[in-house]
Amino acid sequence: MTTLLALYRRPDGGDEAVETFRRRYREEHVPLVAQTPGLRSTTVQETTAKLLGEDVILSTRMEFDDRASLDAGLASDAMRAAGKVLREIAPGIVTLLVLEDVAG
Amino acid sequence: MTTLLALYRRPDGGDEAVETFRRRYREEHVPLVAQTPGLRSTTVQETTAKLLGEDVILSTRMEFDDRASLDAGLASDAMRAAGKVLREIAPGIVTLLVLEDVAG
Repeated sequence: MTTLLALYRRPDGGDEAVETFRRRYREEHVPLVAQTPGLRSTTVQETTAKLLGEDVILSTRMEFDDRASLDAGLASDAMRAAGKVLREIAPGIVTLLVLEDVAG
Repeated sequence: MTTLLALYRRPDGGDEAVETFRRRYREEHVPLVAQTPGLRSTTVQETTAKLLGEDVILSTRMEFDDRASLDAGLASDAMRAAGKVLREIAPGIVTLLVLEDVAG
């Protein structure tokens, strides 16, 4: 499995900005991501406690069979549309990583 | 399920510092974490591509039944010893978050 991990830091603008981000993420971004070909599962999680480090408020894990499937998914119309929404609702707050399991 | 997510940014000191961190993480930290009571699963993943944002090189997801189990795990001797190792090998590069699944 290959994981696409998206981490969202707290947006500027206080609680109202956070709520707007969360709502548009859920209502606009997630339904587009769900249409990505090759996507095996999506897990959206909210931070309920920050124990150390960066103020990440939301993280989403998307699983693909392998790196080729992920690359095809990233190049799909669904993911391009989802990315366009992200550039509107989450400018500068996203970290997006490709992860692979460590052997052993 | 309640997730404890640890994210590690690239340490200063070039490739040698990264390799030392990875080795000590795997050989010293992970075996201690594995002894944590209530820990249901641990997934260690390396970043193979950074598409946006922070230079996170390693991320570890630890799953517990609920927040109470996680809190008990964090207070355990195993996790305290694991934390002590982390303060040696990963000062200032760790983000540690408690995550809960978003309904819907």
